[in-house]
Amino acid sequence: MSDAIDLSEKLSKFSDHWSPRTVAQFNDCDVMVVKVQGEFVWHKHDDTDDFFLVLNGVLDIQLRDRTVTLSPGQMYIVPKGVEHRPVAKDEVHLLLIEPTGTPNTGDPATAAPRKTA
Amino acid sequence: MSDAIDLSEKLSKFSDHWSPRTVAQFNDCDVMVVKVQGEFVWHKHDDTDDFFLVLNGVLDIQLRDRTVTLSPGQMYIVPKGVEHRPVAKDEVHLLLIEPTGTPNTGDPATAAPRKTA
Repeated sequence: MSDAIDLSEKLSKFSDHWSPRTVAQFNDCDVMVVKVQGEFVWHKHDDTDDFFLVLNGVLDIQLRDRTVTLSPGQMYIVPKGVEHRPVAKDEVHLLLIEPTGTPNTGDPATAAPRKTA
Repeated sequence: MSDAIDLSEKLSKFSDHWSPRTVAQFNDCDVMVVKVQGEFVWHKHDDTDDFFLVLNGVLDIQLRDRTVTLSPGQMYIVPKGVEHRPVAKDEVHLLLIEPTGTPNTGDPATAAPRKTA
């Protein structure tokens, strides 16, 4: 159980969008894979930076003043408190890292439940 | 400066081994790329887990009771306090995440200085 974590294999286990799966714990953070497609909601996290690494596809991270476009092997960290909206024209696979318990929408009322893969 | 971080491009900027380059900050952590080849020293981090994601090559993470072998797209998190020794027969490129200031050898006296890329 505690051996190599294969991100592609973890991604192959589910097909729904915007529902991150935790694959490991790093200190107080969840390391997650997620499939996304379409437009997410504008949101921010007041207490944490937001780590995005693209594994497959092309992701736009819209900020209020510009858009950061990420291809596979590219990453971006949205600073805490900064409003952002991830947008994926086609399906994108991501590695995400956030403190355990962080609501993915920035709001517990609308956040996806944390699942494991 | 605050846009997409291309890990391959960052790796192309240096060639020395076992000398991580910080490419971003995530909360209190350094996100780093590193090139490694050969055997590192046995060490542990008493205060933090140790995040390894292989970008290129094949890495063995020797633990006292077994070896975890990682190929590209595979990751492993060494729990805090667990002795480990990374070994790369051929050159391996890694993404590492550790709290800022963590000595890479577990000992400030022998640690590589933190550099940026």
